[in-house]
Amino acid sequence: MDFPQLQEQIRANDYVIPTAGQAPGYVQANLVILPADWAHDFLRFCQINPKPCPLLAVSEPGQPLLSDLGVETAVDVRTDAPAYYIYRDGQLAREQLDIRDLWQDDFVAFAIGCSFSFEEALVMAGLPVRHLNQGCNVPMFISNIPTREAGPFGGPHVVTMRPFSPRNAIHAIEISSRYPKVHGAPIHIGDPKHIGIKDLQKPDFGDAVNINDSEIPVFWACGVTPQMAMLAAKPPICITHKPGCMLVTEITNQTLSLS
Amino acid sequence: MDFPQLQEQIRANDYVIPTAGQAPGYVQANLVILPADWAHDFLRFCQINPKPCPLLAVSEPGQPLLSDLGVETAVDVRTDAPAYYIYRDGQLAREQLDIRDLWQDDFVAFAIGCSFSFEEALVMAGLPVRHLNQGCNVPMFISNIPTREAGPFGGPHVVTMRPFSPRNAIHAIEISSRYPKVHGAPIHIGDPKHIGIKDLQKPDFGDAVNINDSEIPVFWACGVTPQMAMLAAKPPICITHKPGCMLVTEITNQTLSLS
Repeated sequence: MDFPQLQEQIRANDYVIPTAGQAPGYVQANLVILPADWAHDFLRFCQINPKPCPLLAVSEPGQPLLSDLGVETAVDVRTDAPAYYIYRDGQLAREQLDIRDLWQDDFVAFAIGCSFSFEEALVMAGLPVRHLNQGCNVPMFISNIPTREAGPFGGPHVVTMRPFSPRNAIHAIEISSRYPKVHGAPIHIGDPKHIGIKDLQKPDFGDAVNINDSEIPVFWACGVTPQMAMLAAKPPICITHKPGCMLVTEITNQTLSLS
Repeated sequence: MDFPQLQEQIRANDYVIPTAGQAPGYVQANLVILPADWAHDFLRFCQINPKPCPLLAVSEPGQPLLSDLGVETAVDVRTDAPAYYIYRDGQLAREQLDIRDLWQDDFVAFAIGCSFSFEEALVMAGLPVRHLNQGCNVPMFISNIPTREAGPFGGPHVVTMRPFSPRNAIHAIEISSRYPKVHGAPIHIGDPKHIGIKDLQKPDFGDAVNINDSEIPVFWACGVTPQMAMLAAKPPICITHKPGCMLVTEITNQTLSLS
């Protein structure tokens, strides 16, 4: 589905499934919404942990529109993801298709870059991305690499893993390094034990993928990291996109590239 | 020694030793000089093998000055390397401090990028470069990766190896990828057997360096590749810089960076 159609259906609550592969070329983002008195620490957390939490946009308190992510119209964080999770005190409380009824005048919205953008660049460069070719979710692992703490926010880096031949791994590093706003270059390559991962066939989230003997696992910081940090901090209320059902924006992946 | 002093001493034949670490910030280059009837194939060889043979400049036939590599004065390939090797029919015939007496009006000079430039960028970024810290030459290996052939020129890629922690390896790939004119990103990481290297402690050229258990060997294409191709092609005459005694240019490493 192309961008205008997808945005229209999401806004009408007619599109309620994962957004992977939809609106090719357009940036999709992780969404975190917090009350203003929690937002300052979360903003600091993102800024000192840019690999897992690359900030694409932050709203003013009470402002649900993100003009930086729109071209013709601003992105409305209340309606522009297919579905939302509402957490209370760090526990999932319910799921909604939009959050117009829940909006508070002290809410601050954070749009955080998502690996879909650099994956598109990898595919365009002809690199085989295993989980895409296997038609499943990217495998994600809770590593032993700590984030830098800010107030109540901290915890480990969650990482995604994509296996590549050595030559393709180098190429994938080159390409993703040009996209610092969507996790940028990997944070680890090679031996998973080095970062506290015991078994690549048992991801903490997502699906296991095949890895050939001659391939090297390549690990990128993942946008689930700030979600885990938020859950552990237990804010009285927090709203995020439903996993996989990303905030769809009107800017293109191309605009995020350094080159 | 800074650049003007080094250039002056080299031109006066007062500086006749390796140039590593001298004139920091300035580009040093591999030099290959061939008669015009061999130069066309060699030029094609460089252009289809840009990783081992990144061309910085090529002279017109009979022209010993490379204006592209000079700012105030052009580089004179007859005098601007500390020492030269003269090969006849692929055999080292003699060594000279300059080649003014040997210059022919059909000679074509090729200045080929050298890893000194990206090594400087790695050091500036705070990455530890093992052979520099151990005070020896970089280890070089004849790999089983073939070059693409052009006329009589072909043969295997020679590679340099630098060991890094996984995180520093990623950073080294990011940095060197911004310097395509001086070998660019690596061509292999990880298992040396994958590219036909049996023992990292027995380099074909240069010196062995320590590798820690948690480190990954990273392999870059090397400027010795075109020299080996030239030797195997056995041109009636070929002149190169003496190994380690590079052609010193007046352009800065900074100007070679993509960013």
